[in-house]
Amino acid sequence: MRAVILVSGGLDSATVLALARSRGLECHTLSLDYGQRHRAELAAAAHVSSALGAVAHRVVTLDYGQFGGSALTDIATAVPETRAAGIPVTYVPARNTVMLAIALGWAEVLEAREIHIGVNAVDYSGYPDCRPAFIAAFQNLANLATKAAVEGGTLAIQAPLIAWSKGEIILEGLRHGVDFAQTVSCYQADDSGRACGRCDACHFRREGFRAAGVPDPTRYQATPGTSGLA
Amino acid sequence: MRAVILVSGGLDSATVLALARSRGLECHTLSLDYGQRHRAELAAAAHVSSALGAVAHRVVTLDYGQFGGSALTDIATAVPETRAAGIPVTYVPARNTVMLAIALGWAEVLEAREIHIGVNAVDYSGYPDCRPAFIAAFQNLANLATKAAVEGGTLAIQAPLIAWSKGEIILEGLRHGVDFAQTVSCYQADDSGRACGRCDACHFRREGFRAAGVPDPTRYQATPGTSGLA
Repeated sequence: MRAVILVSGGLDSATVLALARSRGLECHTLSLDYGQRHRAELAAAAHVSSALGAVAHRVVTLDYGQFGGSALTDIATAVPETRAAGIPVTYVPARNTVMLAIALGWAEVLEAREIHIGVNAVDYSGYPDCRPAFIAAFQNLANLATKAAVEGGTLAIQAPLIAWSKGEIILEGLRHGVDFAQTVSCYQADDSGRACGRCDACHFRREGFRAAGVPDPTRYQATPGTSGLA
Repeated sequence: MRAVILVSGGLDSATVLALARSRGLECHTLSLDYGQRHRAELAAAAHVSSALGAVAHRVVTLDYGQFGGSALTDIATAVPETRAAGIPVTYVPARNTVMLAIALGWAEVLEAREIHIGVNAVDYSGYPDCRPAFIAAFQNLANLATKAAVEGGTLAIQAPLIAWSKGEIILEGLRHGVDFAQTVSCYQADDSGRACGRCDACHFRREGFRAAGVPDPTRYQATPGTSGLA
Protein backbone atom coordinates (compact mmCIF):
# COMPACT_ATOMS: atom_id res chain seq x y z
CA MET A 1 0.00 0.00 0.00
CA ARG A 2 1.17 3.51 -0.83
CA ALA A 3 1.61 6.30 1.70
CA VAL A 4 2.79 9.89 1.60
CA ILE A 5 5.15 10.65 4.49
CA LEU A 6 5.89 14.24 5.48
CA VAL A 7 9.62 14.32 6.17
CA SER A 8 11.17 17.49 7.55
CA GLY A 9 14.70 16.27 8.09
CA GLY A 10 14.15 16.11 11.84
CA LEU A 11 14.17 13.29 14.34
CA ASP A 12 10.42 12.75 14.58
CA SER A 13 9.58 12.42 10.90
CA ALA A 14 12.57 10.10 10.34
CA THR A 15 11.07 7.79 12.95
CA VAL A 16 7.67 8.02 11.26
CA LEU A 17 9.22 6.97 7.96
CA ALA A 18 11.04 4.05 9.59
CA LEU A 19 7.82 2.87 11.25
CA ALA A 20 5.92 3.09 7.95
CA ARG A 21 8.62 1.11 6.17
CA SER A 22 8.48 -1.54 8.93
CA ARG A 23 4.80 -1.99 8.03
CA GLY A 24 5.85 -2.63 4.43
CA LEU A 25 4.34 0.55 3.02
CA GLU A 26 5.53 2.00 -0.28
CA CYS A 27 6.65 5.38 1.04
CA HIS A 28 6.65 8.62 -0.96
CA THR A 29 8.26 11.38 1.09
CA LEU A 30 7.42 15.06 0.85
CA SER A 31 9.26 18.08 2.22
CA LEU A 32 8.24 21.69 2.15
CA ASP A 33 10.72 24.44 1.36
CA TYR A 34 8.84 27.34 2.94
CA GLY A 35 11.88 29.57 3.25
CA GLN A 36 12.97 28.15 6.61
CA ARG A 37 16.25 29.61 7.81
CA HIS A 38 17.56 26.17 8.77
CA ARG A 39 18.25 25.01 5.21
CA ALA A 40 20.27 21.98 6.36
CA GLU A 41 16.91 20.46 7.33
CA LEU A 42 16.03 19.96 3.65
CA ALA A 43 19.31 18.20 2.87
CA ALA A 44 18.68 15.96 5.88
CA ALA A 45 15.18 15.17 4.56
CA ALA A 46 16.68 13.90 1.32
CA HIS A 47 19.32 11.80 3.11
CA VAL A 48 16.82 10.29 5.52
CA SER A 49 14.37 9.47 2.70
CA SER A 50 17.03 7.65 0.75
CA ALA A 51 18.58 5.86 3.75
CA LEU A 52 15.23 4.56 4.95
CA GLY A 53 14.04 3.31 1.57
CA ALA A 54 11.48 5.84 0.33
CA VAL A 55 10.66 5.18 -3.33
CA ALA A 56 10.47 8.89 -4.14
CA HIS A 57 11.20 12.20 -2.40
CA ARG A 58 9.73 15.50 -3.54
CA VAL A 59 10.36 19.03 -2.32
CA VAL A 60 7.61 21.58 -2.81
CA THR A 61 8.70 25.20 -2.70
CA LEU A 62 6.24 27.71 -1.31
CA ASP A 63 6.98 31.41 -0.93
CA TYR A 64 5.62 31.54 2.58
CA GLY A 65 8.11 34.06 3.94
CA GLN A 66 6.31 36.93 2.18
CA PHE A 67 3.63 36.80 4.87
CA GLY A 68 6.07 37.14 7.77
CA GLY A 69 4.80 36.19 11.20
CA SER A 70 7.44 33.62 12.20
CA ALA A 71 10.99 33.60 13.45
CA LEU A 72 11.60 30.59 11.21
CA THR A 73 11.05 32.51 7.98
CA ASP A 74 11.76 36.09 9.07
CA ILE A 75 15.47 36.72 9.47
CA ALA A 76 14.69 39.93 11.38
CA THR A 77 13.08 37.95 14.24
CA ALA A 78 15.56 36.13 16.46
CA VAL A 79 15.02 32.48 17.38
CA PRO A 80 14.53 32.56 21.15
CA GLU A 81 17.09 30.79 23.29
CA THR A 82 15.14 30.93 26.53
CA ARG A 83 11.76 29.27 27.02
CA ALA A 84 8.71 31.51 27.56
CA ALA A 85 5.01 30.89 28.26
CA GLY A 86 2.55 30.63 25.35
CA ILE A 87 3.07 29.79 21.69
CA PRO A 88 6.60 30.84 20.67
CA VAL A 89 7.61 33.04 17.73
CA THR A 90 9.02 29.96 15.99
CA TYR A 91 5.44 28.91 15.24
CA VAL A 92 4.86 29.10 11.47
CA PRO A 93 1.25 30.14 10.76
CA ALA A 94 -0.82 27.20 9.55
CA ARG A 95 2.27 25.24 8.53
CA ASN A 96 0.93 21.78 9.25
CA THR A 97 -2.36 22.63 7.53
CA VAL A 98 -0.44 23.71 4.43
CA MET A 99 1.85 20.67 4.49
CA LEU A 100 -1.02 18.23 4.93
CA ALA A 101 -2.99 19.97 2.17
CA ILE A 102 -0.12 19.60 -0.30
CA ALA A 103 0.39 15.99 0.81
CA LEU A 104 -3.31 15.41 0.19
CA GLY A 105 -2.93 16.60 -3.39
CA TRP A 106 -0.03 14.25 -4.00
CA ALA A 107 -1.76 11.37 -2.21
CA GLU A 108 -4.72 11.83 -4.49
CA VAL A 109 -2.56 11.61 -7.61
CA LEU A 110 -0.70 8.55 -6.23
CA GLU A 111 -3.92 6.93 -5.02
CA ALA A 112 -2.25 6.63 -1.61
CA ARG A 113 -4.54 5.78 1.28
CA GLU A 114 -2.45 7.18 4.13
CA ILE A 115 -0.59 10.39 4.95
CA HIS A 116 1.89 10.21 7.83
CA ILE A 117 3.03 13.19 9.88
CA GLY A 118 5.41 13.31 12.84
CA VAL A 119 3.50 15.67 15.09
CA ASN A 120 3.88 15.18 18.79
CA ALA A 121 1.83 16.66 21.60
CA VAL A 122 4.09 15.70 24.53
CA ASP A 123 7.63 17.09 24.26
CA TYR A 124 6.76 19.96 21.94
CA SER A 125 6.51 23.72 21.77
CA GLY A 126 2.77 24.09 22.21
CA TYR A 127 1.96 24.63 18.54
CA PRO A 128 -1.81 24.37 17.97
CA ASP A 129 -1.44 22.23 14.86
CA CYS A 130 0.28 19.40 16.72
CA ARG A 131 -2.79 18.36 18.74
CA PRO A 132 -4.91 15.21 18.23
CA ALA A 133 -8.05 17.28 17.58
CA PHE A 134 -6.29 19.04 14.71
CA ILE A 135 -5.26 15.75 13.12
CA ALA A 136 -8.80 14.36 13.45
CA ALA A 137 -10.22 17.51 11.86
CA PHE A 138 -7.83 17.25 8.94
CA GLN A 139 -8.75 13.62 8.34
CA ASN A 140 -12.41 14.61 8.32
CA LEU A 141 -11.64 17.33 5.78
CA ALA A 142 -9.55 14.99 3.61
CA ASN A 143 -12.45 12.58 3.36
CA LEU A 144 -14.65 15.33 1.91
CA ALA A 145 -12.05 17.10 -0.22
CA THR A 146 -11.01 14.62 -2.84
CA LYS A 147 -12.18 12.80 -5.91
CA ALA A 148 -11.27 9.53 -4.15
CA ALA A 149 -13.53 10.47 -1.24
CA VAL A 150 -16.44 11.15 -3.60
CA GLU A 151 -15.84 7.76 -5.16
CA GLY A 152 -15.95 6.00 -1.76
CA GLY A 153 -12.26 5.81 -0.87
CA THR A 154 -10.99 6.78 2.54
CA LEU A 155 -7.77 8.42 3.53
CA ALA A 156 -6.21 8.12 6.97
CA ILE A 157 -3.96 10.71 8.57
CA GLN A 158 -1.46 8.76 10.66
CA ALA A 159 0.31 10.57 13.49
CA PRO A 160 1.94 7.62 15.26
CA LEU A 161 4.14 9.71 17.58
CA ILE A 162 1.43 12.03 18.84
CA ALA A 163 1.30 10.62 22.39
CA TRP A 164 4.93 9.50 22.77
CA SER A 165 7.66 11.22 24.74
CA LYS A 166 10.78 12.29 22.83
CA GLY A 167 12.70 9.51 24.60
CA GLU A 168 10.20 6.90 23.38
CA ILE A 169 10.39 8.26 19.83
CA ILE A 170 14.18 7.94 19.89
CA LEU A 171 14.10 4.35 21.19
CA GLU A 172 11.51 3.33 18.56
CA GLY A 173 13.50 5.07 15.83
CA LEU A 174 16.68 3.24 16.82
CA ARG A 175 14.83 -0.06 16.91
CA HIS A 176 13.72 0.54 13.31
CA GLY A 177 17.09 1.57 11.96
CA VAL A 178 17.08 5.37 12.05
CA ASP A 179 20.53 6.97 12.07
CA PHE A 180 19.76 10.10 14.07
CA ALA A 181 23.14 11.60 13.14
CA GLN A 182 21.54 12.25 9.73
CA THR A 183 18.69 14.27 11.20
CA VAL A 184 18.61 18.00 11.93
CA SER A 185 16.23 19.43 14.53
CA CYS A 186 17.80 22.80 15.35
CA TYR A 187 15.88 25.94 14.28
CA GLN A 188 19.14 27.70 13.47
CA ALA A 189 21.37 24.86 12.31
CA ASP A 190 24.30 25.97 10.19
CA ASP A 191 24.66 24.93 6.55
CA SER A 192 26.44 21.72 7.49
CA GLY A 193 23.62 20.79 9.90
CA ARG A 194 25.40 21.56 13.18
CA ALA A 195 22.98 22.56 15.93
CA CYS A 196 23.02 25.69 18.10
CA GLY A 197 22.32 23.72 21.28
CA ARG A 198 20.16 26.50 22.69
CA CYS A 199 16.79 26.75 20.88
CA ASP A 200 13.58 24.92 21.84
CA ALA A 201 14.16 22.20 19.25
CA CYS A 202 17.68 21.54 20.58
CA HIS A 203 16.34 21.48 24.13
CA PHE A 204 13.71 18.80 23.41
CA ARG A 205 16.12 16.75 21.32
CA ARG A 206 18.89 16.74 23.91
CA GLU A 207 16.46 15.90 26.72
CA GLY A 208 15.09 13.07 24.57
CA PHE A 209 18.46 11.38 24.19
CA ARG A 210 19.08 11.87 27.90
CA ALA A 211 15.70 10.27 28.80
CA ALA A 212 16.26 7.40 26.34
CA GLY A 213 19.63 6.72 27.92
CA VAL A 214 21.42 6.54 24.57
CA PRO A 215 24.30 8.62 23.17
CA ASP A 216 23.30 11.89 21.49
CA PRO A 217 24.88 11.91 17.99
CA THR A 218 24.02 15.57 17.39
CA ARG A 219 26.86 17.71 16.05
CA TYR A 220 26.86 21.06 17.85
CA GLN A 221 28.33 24.35 16.71
CA ALA A 222 31.44 25.36 18.61
CA THR A 223 30.08 28.77 19.59
CA PRO A 224 32.26 30.63 22.11
CA GLY A 225 30.60 30.65 25.51
CA THR A 226 28.56 27.48 25.09
CA SER A 227 29.47 23.85 24.93
CA GLY A 228 26.12 22.98 23.39
CA LEU A 229 25.55 20.79 26.41
CA ALA A 230 24.60 23.47 28.92
CA MET B 1 -12.61 44.17 9.92
CA ARG B 2 -9.97 42.41 7.88
CA ALA B 3 -10.62 39.51 5.52
CA VAL B 4 -8.54 37.41 3.16
CA ILE B 5 -10.30 36.91 -0.18
CA LEU B 6 -9.20 34.17 -2.56
CA VAL B 7 -9.24 35.76 -6.01
CA SER B 8 -8.58 33.58 -9.05
CA GLY B 9 -9.22 36.14 -11.76
CA GLY B 10 -12.54 34.53 -12.59
CA LEU B 11 -16.10 35.73 -12.45
CA ASP B 12 -17.07 34.13 -9.13
CA SER B 13 -14.22 35.37 -6.97
CA ALA B 14 -14.56 38.90 -8.40
CA THR B 15 -18.16 38.89 -7.19
CA VAL B 16 -17.06 37.61 -3.77
CA LEU B 17 -14.60 40.50 -3.48
CA ALA B 18 -17.23 43.04 -4.50
CA LEU B 19 -19.66 41.64 -1.91
CA ALA B 20 -17.02 41.78 0.82
CA ARG B 21 -16.16 45.38 -0.06
CA SER B 22 -19.87 46.27 0.07
CA ARG B 23 -19.82 45.08 3.70
CA GLY B 24 -16.97 47.49 4.38
CA LEU B 25 -14.33 44.81 4.93
CA GLU B 26 -10.64 45.58 4.55
CA CYS B 27 -9.87 43.05 1.83
CA HIS B 28 -6.52 41.34 1.30
CA THR B 29 -6.63 39.27 -1.87
CA LEU B 30 -4.65 36.11 -2.49
CA SER B 31 -4.01 34.21 -5.71
CA LEU B 32 -2.23 30.95 -6.20
CA ASP B 33 0.17 30.41 -9.08
CA TYR B 34 0.07 26.62 -9.19
CA GLY B 35 1.35 26.36 -12.74
CA GLN B 36 -2.09 26.71 -14.33
CA ARG B 37 -1.91 26.81 -18.09
CA HIS B 38 -4.33 29.75 -18.25
CA ARG B 39 -1.81 32.38 -17.09
CA ALA B 40 -4.09 35.29 -18.05
CA GLU B 41 -6.12 34.37 -14.97
CA LEU B 42 -3.37 35.70 -12.69
CA ALA B 43 -3.18 39.04 -14.52
CA ALA B 44 -6.97 39.27 -14.20
CA ALA B 45 -6.72 38.58 -10.46
CA ALA B 46 -4.42 41.59 -10.06
CA HIS B 47 -6.68 43.87 -12.14
CA VAL B 48 -9.82 42.81 -10.32
CA SER B 49 -8.18 43.26 -6.89
CA SER B 50 -7.11 46.77 -7.73
CA ALA B 51 -10.36 47.78 -9.44
CA LEU B 52 -12.50 46.59 -6.54
CA GLY B 53 -10.43 48.24 -3.81
CA ALA B 54 -8.40 45.46 -2.17
CA VAL B 55 -5.74 46.97 0.11
CA ALA B 56 -3.18 44.31 -0.88
CA HIS B 57 -2.87 41.48 -3.40
CA ARG B 58 -0.39 38.65 -3.02
CA VAL B 59 0.46 35.79 -5.35
CA VAL B 60 1.84 32.62 -3.81
CA THR B 61 3.74 30.36 -6.18
CA LEU B 62 3.53 26.64 -5.57
CA ASP B 63 5.19 24.04 -7.77
CA TYR B 64 2.11 21.88 -7.95
CA GLY B 65 2.59 20.71 -11.52
CA GLN B 66 5.32 18.26 -10.45
CA PHE B 67 2.61 15.95 -9.10
CA GLY B 68 0.65 15.84 -12.37
CA GLY B 69 -2.90 14.60 -12.20
CA SER B 70 -4.72 17.53 -13.79
CA ALA B 71 -5.33 18.89 -17.25
CA LEU B 72 -4.91 22.37 -15.78
CA THR B 73 -1.26 21.87 -14.88
CA ASP B 74 -0.27 19.08 -17.26
CA ILE B 75 0.21 20.35 -20.79
CA ALA B 76 0.14 16.75 -22.07
CA THR B 77 -3.50 16.32 -20.98
CA ALA B 78 -6.00 18.12 -23.19
CA VAL B 79 -8.73 20.30 -21.67
CA PRO B 80 -11.95 18.54 -22.67
CA GLU B 81 -14.35 20.36 -24.93
CA THR B 82 -17.27 18.03 -24.49
CA ARG B 83 -19.00 17.35 -21.18
CA ALA B 84 -18.71 13.87 -19.64
CA ALA B 85 -20.08 12.17 -16.52
CA GLY B 86 -18.06 12.23 -13.27
CA ILE B 87 -15.34 14.54 -12.06
CA PRO B 88 -13.47 15.94 -15.09
CA VAL B 89 -9.70 15.92 -15.73
CA THR B 90 -9.63 19.67 -15.11
CA TYR B 91 -10.01 18.93 -11.39
CA VAL B 92 -6.77 19.94 -9.59
CA PRO B 93 -6.12 17.55 -6.68
CA ALA B 94 -6.86 19.21 -3.33
CA ARG B 95 -6.59 22.69 -4.83
CA ASN B 96 -9.17 24.38 -2.63
CA THR B 97 -7.70 22.70 0.45
CA VAL B 98 -4.26 24.05 -0.46
CA MET B 99 -5.56 27.55 -1.25
CA LEU B 100 -7.58 27.76 1.96
CA ALA B 101 -4.59 26.47 3.98
CA ILE B 102 -2.32 29.20 2.58
CA ALA B 103 -5.05 31.79 3.13
CA LEU B 104 -5.30 30.57 6.71
CA GLY B 105 -1.60 31.24 7.25
CA TRP B 106 -1.91 34.78 5.90
CA ALA B 107 -5.15 35.39 7.84
CA GLU B 108 -3.36 34.41 11.00
CA VAL B 109 -0.54 36.88 10.39
CA LEU B 110 -3.03 39.65 9.49
CA GLU B 111 -5.32 38.77 12.40
CA ALA B 112 -8.14 38.54 9.86
CA ARG B 113 -11.34 36.92 11.06
CA GLU B 114 -12.76 35.82 7.72
CA ILE B 115 -11.57 34.00 4.62
CA HIS B 116 -13.78 34.30 1.52
CA ILE B 117 -13.84 31.81 -1.33
CA GLY B 118 -15.97 31.82 -4.48
CA VAL B 119 -16.91 28.14 -4.59
CA ASN B 120 -20.25 27.29 -6.07
CA ALA B 121 -22.16 24.02 -5.92
CA VAL B 122 -24.83 24.79 -8.53
CA ASP B 123 -23.42 25.63 -11.97
CA TYR B 124 -20.10 23.88 -11.49
CA SER B 125 -18.06 20.94 -12.68
CA GLY B 126 -18.74 18.56 -9.80
CA TYR B 127 -15.44 19.15 -7.98
CA PRO B 128 -15.60 17.64 -4.47
CA ASP B 129 -13.99 20.67 -2.81
CA CYS B 130 -16.80 23.00 -3.88
CA ARG B 131 -19.45 21.42 -1.61
CA PRO B 132 -20.92 22.96 1.57
CA ALA B 133 -19.71 20.01 3.70
CA PHE B 134 -16.15 20.67 2.56
CA ILE B 135 -16.35 24.35 3.54
CA ALA B 136 -17.80 23.46 6.95
CA ALA B 137 -15.02 20.92 7.53
CA PHE B 138 -12.36 23.48 6.66
CA GLN B 139 -13.86 26.02 9.06
CA ASN B 140 -13.80 23.39 11.80
CA LEU B 141 -10.14 22.68 11.02
CA ALA B 142 -9.24 26.38 10.94
CA ASN B 143 -10.64 26.83 14.40
CA LEU B 144 -8.28 24.16 15.73
CA ALA B 145 -5.23 24.96 13.62
CA THR B 146 -4.15 28.41 14.65
CA LYS B 147 -2.63 30.39 17.46
CA ALA B 148 -5.67 32.69 17.31
CA ALA B 149 -7.95 29.67 17.81
CA VAL B 150 -5.99 28.57 20.88
CA GLU B 151 -6.32 32.08 22.24
CA GLY B 152 -10.10 32.08 21.77
CA GLY B 153 -10.49 33.78 18.39
CA THR B 154 -12.71 32.37 15.71
CA LEU B 155 -12.30 32.37 11.98
CA ALA B 156 -15.18 32.07 9.52
CA ILE B 157 -14.92 30.62 6.03
CA GLN B 158 -17.36 32.59 3.90
CA ALA B 159 -18.60 31.02 0.68
CA PRO B 160 -21.40 33.45 -0.21
CA LEU B 161 -22.01 32.08 -3.73
CA ILE B 162 -22.24 28.43 -2.79
CA ALA B 163 -25.97 28.08 -3.43
CA TRP B 164 -26.40 30.63 -6.22
CA SER B 165 -26.83 29.97 -9.92
CA LYS B 166 -24.28 31.48 -12.28
CA GLY B 167 -26.95 33.93 -13.47
CA GLU B 168 -27.57 35.12 -9.91
CA ILE B 169 -23.84 35.53 -9.30
CA ILE B 170 -23.55 37.70 -12.41
CA LEU B 171 -26.50 39.91 -11.42
CA GLU B 172 -25.15 40.38 -7.88
CA GLY B 173 -21.68 41.13 -9.23
CA LEU B 174 -23.04 43.78 -11.60
CA ARG B 175 -25.06 45.33 -8.77
CA HIS B 176 -21.82 45.67 -6.76
CA GLY B 177 -19.71 47.15 -9.54
CA VAL B 178 -17.85 44.20 -11.03
CA ASP B 179 -16.61 44.74 -14.58
CA PHE B 180 -16.78 41.17 -15.85
CA ALA B 181 -14.78 42.13 -18.96
CA GLN B 182 -11.76 42.13 -16.59
CA THR B 183 -12.35 38.53 -15.52
CA VAL B 184 -11.07 35.34 -17.15
CA SER B 185 -12.85 32.02 -16.65
CA CYS B 186 -11.60 29.92 -19.57
CA TYR B 187 -9.32 26.96 -18.75
CA GLN B 188 -7.31 27.59 -21.90
CA ALA B 189 -7.50 31.36 -22.28
CA ASP B 190 -4.74 32.83 -24.41
CA ASP B 191 -2.15 35.24 -22.97
CA SER B 192 -4.36 38.25 -23.59
CA GLY B 193 -7.23 36.58 -21.72
CA ARG B 194 -9.39 35.63 -24.71
CA ALA B 195 -11.55 32.57 -24.08
CA CYS B 196 -11.76 29.35 -26.10
CA GLY B 197 -15.57 29.27 -25.91
CA ARG B 198 -15.61 25.48 -25.68
CA CYS B 199 -14.39 24.26 -22.24
CA ASP B 200 -16.57 23.64 -19.17
CA ALA B 201 -15.70 27.01 -17.66
CA CYS B 202 -16.69 28.82 -20.88
CA HIS B 203 -19.91 26.82 -21.01
CA PHE B 204 -21.04 27.78 -17.49
CA ARG B 205 -19.99 31.41 -17.98
CA ARG B 206 -21.84 31.85 -21.26
CA GLU B 207 -24.95 30.15 -19.91
CA GLY B 208 -24.77 32.44 -16.86
CA PHE B 209 -24.88 35.62 -18.93
CA ARG B 210 -27.72 34.16 -20.99
CA ALA B 211 -29.70 33.28 -17.83
CA ALA B 212 -29.04 36.70 -16.30
CA GLY B 213 -30.28 38.36 -19.49
CA VAL B 214 -27.30 40.72 -19.71
CA PRO B 215 -24.65 41.16 -22.45
CA ASP B 216 -21.70 38.76 -22.25
CA PRO B 217 -18.52 40.92 -22.31
CA THR B 218 -16.23 37.89 -22.78
CA ARG B 219 -13.62 38.23 -25.52
CA TYR B 220 -13.43 34.98 -27.48
CA GLN B 221 -10.55 33.66 -29.58
CA ALA B 222 -11.25 33.79 -33.30
CA THR B 223 -10.53 30.09 -33.82
CA PRO B 224 -11.44 28.83 -37.30
CA GLY B 225 -14.50 26.63 -37.11
CA THR B 226 -16.04 28.16 -34.00
CA SER B 227 -17.64 31.50 -33.35
CA GLY B 228 -17.25 31.02 -29.62
CA LEU B 229 -21.02 31.19 -29.40
CA ALA B 230 -21.84 27.70 -30.59
